[in-house]
Amino acid sequence: MTEPRPRLTESRFVFSPAAAFCGLLLLGAASFAAPAAPGTAEALRDSALQGTRAYEIVSSLTTEVGPRPAGSEAFQRAVVWGVRTLNELGFQNVRAEKVTLPHWDIGTGEGRITAPWPQPMVLTALGGSEPTPDAGIDAEVVQVASLDALKAIDAAKVKGKIVFINKRMERHKDGTGYRDAVPGRTAGAAVAGKLGAVAVIIRSVGTDTNRLPHTGAMNYEKGGPRIPAAALSVPDADVLEKEIASGKPVTFHLKLTSHYLPDADGANVIGEIRGREKADEIVLLGCHLDSWHLGTGAIDDGAGCAIMIEAARRIGALKEKPRRTIRVVLYANEEFGLNGAIAYAKEHAAELPKHILAGESDLGSGRVFGVTSRVAPETLPALAEIVKLLAPLGIAQGDNGAFGGSDLIPLVPARVPVLSLEQDASLYFDWHHSANDTLDKIDPKDLDQNVAAWAAAAYAAAEMKGDFGRAPEVTGEE
Amino acid sequence: MTEPRPRLTESRFVFSPAAAFCGLLLLGAASFAAPAAPGTAEALRDSALQGTRAYEIVSSLTTEVGPRPAGSEAFQRAVVWGVRTLNELGFQNVRAEKVTLPHWDIGTGEGRITAPWPQPMVLTALGGSEPTPDAGIDAEVVQVASLDALKAIDAAKVKGKIVFINKRMERHKDGTGYRDAVPGRTAGAAVAGKLGAVAVIIRSVGTDTNRLPHTGAMNYEKGGPRIPAAALSVPDADVLEKEIASGKPVTFHLKLTSHYLPDADGANVIGEIRGREKADEIVLLGCHLDSWHLGTGAIDDGAGCAIMIEAARRIGALKEKPRRTIRVVLYANEEFGLNGAIAYAKEHAAELPKHILAGESDLGSGRVFGVTSRVAPETLPALAEIVKLLAPLGIAQGDNGAFGGSDLIPLVPARVPVLSLEQDASLYFDWHHSANDTLDKIDPKDLDQNVAAWAAAAYAAAEMKGDFGRAPEVTGEE
Repeated sequence: MTEPRPRLTESRFVFSPAAAFCGLLLLGAASFAAPAAPGTAEALRDSALQGTRAYEIVSSLTTEVGPRPAGSEAFQRAVVWGVRTLNELGFQNVRAEKVTLPHWDIGTGEGRITAPWPQPMVLTALGGSEPTPDAGIDAEVVQVASLDALKAIDAAKVKGKIVFINKRMERHKDGTGYRDAVPGRTAGAAVAGKLGAVAVIIRSVGTDTNRLPHTGAMNYEKGGPRIPAAALSVPDADVLEKEIASGKPVTFHLKLTSHYLPDADGANVIGEIRGREKADEIVLLGCHLDSWHLGTGAIDDGAGCAIMIEAARRIGALKEKPRRTIRVVLYANEEFGLNGAIAYAKEHAAELPKHILAGESDLGSGRVFGVTSRVAPETLPALAEIVKLLAPLGIAQGDNGAFGGSDLIPLVPARVPVLSLEQDASLYFDWHHSANDTLDKIDPKDLDQNVAAWAAAAYAAAEMKGDFGRAPEVTGEE
Repeated sequence: MTEPRPRLTESRFVFSPAAAFCGLLLLGAASFAAPAAPGTAEALRDSALQGTRAYEIVSSLTTEVGPRPAGSEAFQRAVVWGVRTLNELGFQNVRAEKVTLPHWDIGTGEGRITAPWPQPMVLTALGGSEPTPDAGIDAEVVQVASLDALKAIDAAKVKGKIVFINKRMERHKDGTGYRDAVPGRTAGAAVAGKLGAVAVIIRSVGTDTNRLPHTGAMNYEKGGPRIPAAALSVPDADVLEKEIASGKPVTFHLKLTSHYLPDADGANVIGEIRGREKADEIVLLGCHLDSWHLGTGAIDDGAGCAIMIEAARRIGALKEKPRRTIRVVLYANEEFGLNGAIAYAKEHAAELPKHILAGESDLGSGRVFGVTSRVAPETLPALAEIVKLLAPLGIAQGDNGAFGGSDLIPLVPARVPVLSLEQDASLYFDWHHSANDTLDKIDPKDLDQNVAAWAAAAYAAAEMKGDFGRAPEVTGEE
């Protein structure tokens, strides 16, 4: 997962599961339509805990494709993988819906402290960074504690320097440390560039202490300076911090070869389990097919795709399909522009009123511990049935202000109802956007619990007599 | 730490703390000479637990020098650091004793699987590897489970291929998994080369799952083929294994720029706390000043040097110094030839009969859990006093067949008695010889416990009325 970037302001969709557990006000159990076949949903839930194919699916993706950044040839191979996999697993209407994608290559990142005590540094370009000149950039380092501290600094102190944003990310089960640490990554270069800095380096936005930097999207301001931006691994940031603490002037050499290439073809990959009665009504299960360059995209978002594909496959394997259609969408380029999500909303605009529920899995493979929603308030009693279905999995009820996932943002104007299964992200940011995003970080049993939850919830939603109405308008920060 | 390499056969000194705990046969408490001032040793032990400067010392070394491979300019800076630090901490007779060192540069390691499913690979040259040609090596991969399996394979299966030694290292508190996994690293290239292979890649000898390869010494046979040798990170080895498991032919591109440079000057750094009565009798506390290229050498062996320097410094800060001299030796090039240790034994040959005890700290910063020795059997009752002194630190008695440390090997012919404090190595091999060997992996409280143990033991040995005689001859594998 990354931040929502285009069209919608960040403040409206800050990822904040912490705020989600303010309690779900149930409206009483009198007037809602119960799912027609609760036994089936429960069986889907319980059988998944006995073992699913989810791990096999993410293993296949990470082995046969591996890293698959938007615009790359590898992403095209991922699309081929997606179409083949959905066909092999018995999906219907499998297709690749073309999307034009930006193509930024991460290149190589080199750096070293040149004084007072020379040391090699491990770093990577941030997503979208311009390269340095071929000879690199050599400049003194100015340290700031956060993006806010940078905004408050005297431009004279920054001019001609490399700004080091030394903000630590905190570990929290709900991942909220990300929200606090990420602004330095996304906006650091824009802010520092306007102050006259020649480059930005940040302490990686990650909770680990591995010598592996975390990349992730950053943005320049339109017409603003475009200075190179890189992330140091956490131990490298520690060394730089200590050299700075000596009080001696610290100089740094930075070389990035990251660069943009021409836009390239890509696609959303889509497959369906067609409904038996109301096939035109859709329960959308989303994930994203692209990854960053450094890892194999196992947790971000191979895991999410494996969970959603397998949840839908298990519903498709039932003798009697649910009333409505389950549609799995493997989105193109969540990480670096949401192009797939935006294209989907545009291409399927006419269908969106018939999207009765959408969900995305994009926070790794950690177990689901909460369920939040964004549905018509009068349908919360119906949602309570799903909440009840999930409780045996250790999933607690949350509020009706769900974010849902970056790829669902373009569905907001159509007020598509959202279901969000909140995952334990305690370990996720140890690996996220780094070379350590690899298959070994996934426990198959955790994936199975996710599959159990999504299969049960998606089936119940696809089978229920009523629906969730239209989601409330999103009017501001929850 | 690395393997003992020159002069002595590996089998005689296999690191095997597991074998050490067979029980120490105490010979009764009647006839031994008790330390004269047990109260002082106990105070040294207990005060260290309240906090020492050890962390500050390793922080200084890793910040102000960082990686310091043998032969490099950085190693020369480490020597300057060592001399300055020992002087600043009040040592006497501080000097750098010149040693000529080999100079091998690790260069860059690049690799990728080229078929059936292209994927970038993270790898590093093994210590001493020749480079590949500039264009790299492209060949099919043949997987073997271990060095033994390689030795048994038909040469026809290997000729012209890249051999992949896919041996997993097991995690054990006493580090014995290293002994089982490391032969593929040290001898893989020699064996595969003779079979006609064009290169060797191994699964890193490490217990982690980080995308960081572990280097370490390897040897070619004299006059034998010198094929390039590299280590894949564990997750990369997993991907390669999975591609091989597909049954399709797997091809690999490998490029290493590692190479030898001319021998270079280096030095052992030595400092002393002079004894008050028998200053010519020496208790030697060793560690090694060099590190591999990838990390900052925090756990290997900055921690050991910090422990030994600080243990001796605390003895030096006593109002009354012990009878004998405590000599700290920061050895040059433990990792890649033991040149410093060999030079020390040669230069100080005349003094070695007066070395009454030697110890080395070179297994990271984990807590000491056991004490082994190699002393004259009739002096074991005197040793029991030291064992008793260490017991409150959670340190159990072991046998009299201690290894002691690689840098102590050249002291074996002089039968210098050895004390070995066995450390908990459960986590050590997660980071060992990789870029992850950085300061953040060290808990200062663990260092303090090591300092407590070494300060108490070294003081007791330097103060005791008798001595430990001469160590038994080492006749074979313990």
